[in-house]
Amino acid sequence: MATELAESYFPSPQLTPRDGDLFNIDAALTEEERAVRDSVRRFVDERVLPIIGKYYVDGKFPKELIPEMGELGFFGANLPEEYGCAGLNNVSYGLIMQELERGDSGIRSFASVQGALVMYPIYAFGSEEQKRHWLPRMAKGEVIGCFGLTEPDYGSNPAGMITRARKQQDGSWVLNGAKMWITNGSTAHVAVVWAKTEDDDDSGRSIRGFVVPTDTPGFTARDQKGKLSLRASDTSELVLQDVKLPAEAILPNSGGLKSPLMCLTQARYGISWGALGAAIACFEEATSYAKNRVMFDKPIGAFQIQQVRLAEMLTEITKGQLLSLHLGRCKDLGTFTPTMVSLAKRNNVNIATDIAREARRLLGGNGILAEYASMRHMANLESVYTYEGTHDVHSLVLGQAITGFNAFK
Amino acid sequence: MATELAESYFPSPQLTPRDGDLFNIDAALTEEERAVRDSVRRFVDERVLPIIGKYYVDGKFPKELIPEMGELGFFGANLPEEYGCAGLNNVSYGLIMQELERGDSGIRSFASVQGALVMYPIYAFGSEEQKRHWLPRMAKGEVIGCFGLTEPDYGSNPAGMITRARKQQDGSWVLNGAKMWITNGSTAHVAVVWAKTEDDDDSGRSIRGFVVPTDTPGFTARDQKGKLSLRASDTSELVLQDVKLPAEAILPNSGGLKSPLMCLTQARYGISWGALGAAIACFEEATSYAKNRVMFDKPIGAFQIQQVRLAEMLTEITKGQLLSLHLGRCKDLGTFTPTMVSLAKRNNVNIATDIAREARRLLGGNGILAEYASMRHMANLESVYTYEGTHDVHSLVLGQAITGFNAFK
Amino acid sequence: MATELAESYFPSPQLTPRDGDLFNIDAALTEEERAVRDSVRRFVDERVLPIIGKYYVDGKFPKELIPEMGELGFFGANLPEEYGCAGLNNVSYGLIMQELERGDSGIRSFASVQGALVMYPIYAFGSEEQKRHWLPRMAKGEVIGCFGLTEPDYGSNPAGMITRARKQQDGSWVLNGAKMWITNGSTAHVAVVWAKTEDDDDSGRSIRGFVVPTDTPGFTARDQKGKLSLRASDTSELVLQDVKLPAEAILPNSGGLKSPLMCLTQARYGISWGALGAAIACFEEATSYAKNRVMFDKPIGAFQIQQVRLAEMLTEITKGQLLSLHLGRCKDLGTFTPTMVSLAKRNNVNIATDIAREARRLLGGNGILAEYASMRHMANLESVYTYEGTHDVHSLVLGQAITGFNAFK
Amino acid sequence: MATELAESYFPSPQLTPRDGDLFNIDAALTEEERAVRDSVRRFVDERVLPIIGKYYVDGKFPKELIPEMGELGFFGANLPEEYGCAGLNNVSYGLIMQELERGDSGIRSFASVQGALVMYPIYAFGSEEQKRHWLPRMAKGEVIGCFGLTEPDYGSNPAGMITRARKQQDGSWVLNGAKMWITNGSTAHVAVVWAKTEDDDDSGRSIRGFVVPTDTPGFTARDQKGKLSLRASDTSELVLQDVKLPAEAILPNSGGLKSPLMCLTQARYGISWGALGAAIACFEEATSYAKNRVMFDKPIGAFQIQQVRLAEMLTEITKGQLLSLHLGRCKDLGTFTPTMVSLAKRNNVNIATDIAREARRLLGGNGILAEYASMRHMANLESVYTYEGTHDVHSLVLGQAITGFNAFK
Repeated sequence: MATELAESYFPSPQLTPRDGDLFNIDAALTEEERAVRDSVRRFVDERVLPIIGKYYVDGKFPKELIPEMGELGFFGANLPEEYGCAGLNNVSYGLIMQELERGDSGIRSFASVQGALVMYPIYAFGSEEQKRHWLPRMAKGEVIGCFGLTEPDYGSNPAGMITRARKQQDGSWVLNGAKMWITNGSTAHVAVVWAKTEDDDDSGRSIRGFVVPTDTPGFTARDQKGKLSLRASDTSELVLQDVKLPAEAILPNSGGLKSPLMCLTQARYGISWGALGAAIACFEEATSYAKNRVMFDKPIGAFQIQQVRLAEMLTEITKGQLLSLHLGRCKDLGTFTPTMVSLAKRNNVNIATDIAREARRLLGGNGILAEYASMRHMANLESVYTYEGTHDVHSLVLGQAITGFNAFK
Repeated sequence: MATELAESYFPSPQLTPRDGDLFNIDAALTEEERAVRDSVRRFVDERVLPIIGKYYVDGKFPKELIPEMGELGFFGANLPEEYGCAGLNNVSYGLIMQELERGDSGIRSFASVQGALVMYPIYAFGSEEQKRHWLPRMAKGEVIGCFGLTEPDYGSNPAGMITRARKQQDGSWVLNGAKMWITNGSTAHVAVVWAKTEDDDDSGRSIRGFVVPTDTPGFTARDQKGKLSLRASDTSELVLQDVKLPAEAILPNSGGLKSPLMCLTQARYGISWGALGAAIACFEEATSYAKNRVMFDKPIGAFQIQQVRLAEMLTEITKGQLLSLHLGRCKDLGTFTPTMVSLAKRNNVNIATDIAREARRLLGGNGILAEYASMRHMANLESVYTYEGTHDVHSLVLGQAITGFNAFK
Repeated sequence: MATELAESYFPSPQLTPRDGDLFNIDAALTEEERAVRDSVRRFVDERVLPIIGKYYVDGKFPKELIPEMGELGFFGANLPEEYGCAGLNNVSYGLIMQELERGDSGIRSFASVQGALVMYPIYAFGSEEQKRHWLPRMAKGEVIGCFGLTEPDYGSNPAGMITRARKQQDGSWVLNGAKMWITNGSTAHVAVVWAKTEDDDDSGRSIRGFVVPTDTPGFTARDQKGKLSLRASDTSELVLQDVKLPAEAILPNSGGLKSPLMCLTQARYGISWGALGAAIACFEEATSYAKNRVMFDKPIGAFQIQQVRLAEMLTEITKGQLLSLHLGRCKDLGTFTPTMVSLAKRNNVNIATDIAREARRLLGGNGILAEYASMRHMANLESVYTYEGTHDVHSLVLGQAITGFNAFK
Repeated sequence: MATELAESYFPSPQLTPRDGDLFNIDAALTEEERAVRDSVRRFVDERVLPIIGKYYVDGKFPKELIPEMGELGFFGANLPEEYGCAGLNNVSYGLIMQELERGDSGIRSFASVQGALVMYPIYAFGSEEQKRHWLPRMAKGEVIGCFGLTEPDYGSNPAGMITRARKQQDGSWVLNGAKMWITNGSTAHVAVVWAKTEDDDDSGRSIRGFVVPTDTPGFTARDQKGKLSLRASDTSELVLQDVKLPAEAILPNSGGLKSPLMCLTQARYGISWGALGAAIACFEEATSYAKNRVMFDKPIGAFQIQQVRLAEMLTEITKGQLLSLHLGRCKDLGTFTPTMVSLAKRNNVNIATDIAREARRLLGGNGILAEYASMRHMANLESVYTYEGTHDVHSLVLGQAITGFNAFK
């Protein structure tokens, strides 16, 4: 009986683990989940890895990949098929994020924003009309979205938001404000912008979401220059100056800070998987290098110092995978909590930054070159460490959950 | 469908997580598993915690607990009922180890030795007669066992073993040698002793196990004095001087170094759970202290520095739990490997040592007193870090699994 | 000229560094300083190391050493000769603390309390009569002192002190209160007790020091039991119940919290050196063990993993030595600040705890035995980490010095 | 007397420490040394910082700075005035490196190569004619040099060198080989190239240095592309194909691997200081940001989490400064050893990488922008971590010094 029970936990116990899957994580994935993962892995190997180094150095997002990503169903993959999405479970969705970020954090960020920060709020807070209008075209990648929440002086404290939406006599809206650190900001066709309405009572309950076509007069986006991280991703400042929107632009079921925070929870869930992808890329690169690079007449992988490095990487990746997997199963059941997501995002990004750094170091001088992936990931992950709730913010989220005390202020 | 799948992973999704189970680990346990855990937890709360501090300071194992531990089925709990054992699955077995070590590493060590290092080899390598003779009485705790493998100069390299078993004309055996770091050595009624037989060809294949009643002439045990760790546990040196044993004393199915290593794999599996128990004890103590201890007019749990400490502890415990749980499910399916066990033992003990230290520090001056648990665990875990394969040895096991290169020498 | 300048910094450049002094620290010590250090080193090697393990296990301070320590001038060694003290500079004083703690933190604590916490306040805040009465006898070790500042609920916040001194009509005093964590409390002949006088205006300025013979009626000391750290040291709770003292018992020049804090600064200065001594003991033990212990046919010191451990230890000890040396030179010039002392105490104790732990681990199973020193130091240093300003408190002292902001509350 | 002694150690005890010099390090510098440091600091503030971010993003070294650096005496500043150099002591030289790297590791690398790797070997191993010919013009920055030692497959093992110098009948030389990771390679007018002569007996003693004008036929340099670190520095591959050199091109006093290793020791000494400069830049940027950036209605510097970050940075910088200072004083006396340099280079670069990362993180999203310095330093320092002996190589150098065992192989 014990065996039967374990089998139900492990849809694929018979599986010979893939090379490198030393903790037999694959046994806990369904055949479908593995198939999804493998198809994204192939896409990344064939389409992303050959070009990403150059795009990164040039500071450009590889837009040419968007249609194919859409076709393969990477955008909003956990949303229902009736809106043109793939309708996958959350573990499959996570595995997509993992594999995309094995390519580059910028690629995964693109998909995260599109799916979790634009399609998701339209799905969760939008009218049926909004859903039917936007979701299928966004799933295909024909329409690109961005998410306007963060403001220059309120990075970790969205409640401080200054952007305002004034309701006009005729029910239409006028938006004014500025947003910063907006992924896809300058490429997007549509922005989900969060603003305070005038009935603001400081409770934060008046925060509402608006669907803003980016060609609306008064809406401008400007790329942020001089990034030393996420260079293969567009990051913009948005300015909204008297942007007039029709009454129907509002997301009718949004209300309060809770709505954008729900989006962030979706995105963070994906990040917890994505960071593992970056870590896996670095671990695999380091392992391969260690097996082949000879120094003092031996492959460096035969030296204890490098073995300790690799052992640490493997251990941390394994634990991160189990965190995200458990989280995904809970998410499918509706029993996951923001605290759980904080724990997984915080941990997985943090270990990924360490793994990327150690991989780069194992690579020696070659480790600073864009033809290898580790230093690119190392640099990217610093953004991921900071965005969607900095590491420190999540420490305090956990601290509050544990002690009951708020230590943010 | 996605939901159904997730449900099969989570036998208990409906569960309101226990206080402190912030990552909803309990959802992945069956009702039976939780019941086993809760019963051991109760035993530890009621019978171990009130007395263990004093036993630790006095340097004594609380033998009075043995009969009750036997009655409750803690010894060899994953061995079959037909030999008087509890016949539990490996996750339940692990949870028993976790809860016992929440009490003290010495208590868990006692159970580990009894179950994984003495009962297991008799079960795995013994004759039917040996099994019927020893296992039921050991399960009840009427007979106490010890495991004689480690020798003074070969702590991390059992292949170097010096102890010899000479076969006599009449088929009987004579054993000579010395063993060290033997838990329960001076209390045991029976020892499983590993020795090289004379047909040794340096391949290690000649290593065989012997069941040695400790009242056999020539067998002596002497307690090791001055321990600053595992003080509530007996640790002994064994000397075997012309110990004569009948032909039937040999474990007929043992053969080669592989046999005792299989025992160690069993024991390490339990340690991976046990160390979590020590960590949980420290985390719970630190959390409670942080909520109640006031300094500068606030509970110290309201300070960021302490919240970061607690957040780290929670994160590491959560990941450790998922490691051991995954390992246990694989063990039930027979797909777990020694490499997996190395990863889990190495990680879980290591994080437990850090958690114990940080908990002690959070407790301030009180943290050095035996009336609190954290420093006792901190000291104990140093033994656990070293025994059953030191941390470094397991690093190299993992390094070899990753790179294919042996870096032990 | 450059060379001349450097020579002035290095009184002993010609010196062939001692074995193990790989960064040539000795070159920065005068011949006298090295002579002082070497004489304490000899005392510790000959008188402390042979017995300290047993005293530690037994939980007793080796009182038999006190007269010799007095004779050798270890108590209040940086106070003037006119009061029977050694009149050494602060670097020599620090080196004494280093070498004593190379023996045991309990031995150094004894000397710290005697010199920095009892003799120093009498010297700094006492009347000429008090100095003449107490200092020479304390320097010889004929009178033992203790320092009563810390209270049960105000470990890190002495301003919260509850102990009260009421002035009587006749100018005499009555003290009431309780103190905790008092080193030497039960052995002391005299206590310097800090109390608030009734003109307390919450400014803390009313805190005054009193010289209290411990045989005064109403004064009781009770040893704290169950310590798992500093076991070779007496730690007590003091109760003062209507302790009547003559008018002359007050330290006339004490006033405000600043006075006991000045004592703590003296003590912390010594601790910054002392912790290095514990670290050096562990490093030397680990190095020796690594050179001699053979595993897999090699001394373990030939393995990369252990070399990394030792390299880290050496690096941290070297930096700690330079910190304390710089601090001592500044102290001799009167240009050292409490912030500098916080930095050095915090760092040196912290690295010592890591070094002790790693040394213990390098020692394998033997590392848990009292016949080796590392685990004893590891346990002791947890007290040192916490007392005289916890690590966290000093973090915030530094944080305030850097940013200008108080983050204690 | 104690005070006098301390005064000799501290030429500037009266000094009010500079803002931020919380451990009063300046007191241990002479007025001249502080003046040198301050003048470089000014140069960096005025000439480097305003432009370096853009050069870094563009991947170019700011050649425009070279003449001024020459004029200010930054090249080979510790070589004698008779060859046109500044004739400063080694501490002043180190402070120059520190301040240059406060600007950018690429700027300091340029000066290190020019001074320690090209001017130094000409000074130490060259003929009087070579010295008179090259040094004054190099000191002025009119001639730029590069150092050709590292080869593609022997990064950490220069003894494996493949480049060969064949002596011709007429005493002239022909060089063949390839070099990699050559700073200034494509800008240099002259290269000091290390090659094995034909009397090679594998002892390494036949390695000789050659002064090679880069316009010699057969000498080509090609910039390495795609660097994600040290982007404001030229790094090249050199190819030497039948490069014919006159007999006088050899450095007559070079001989054996020892000669280039002596150059590396010089360079590493400077790196130990330089890395501190990068760390100081990050610490100062983080401190300033923490004081001014408001989040949750407070400057973030008022939060405990950030104070701990800053306290760690300050502590590590302080210790690094004392290491390099001690090393410099020893160097002036001729008592410094390669082991000491390994310890300081390894430590100071390592702590600088941590400080840069933590500073970047404290800066939040802004921390990824080139208009701030921390992430640029973080990326640069990865090169510094690897070059001139990787961190791991120096670990084993120290390990060997401690244990006596060689663990490189």
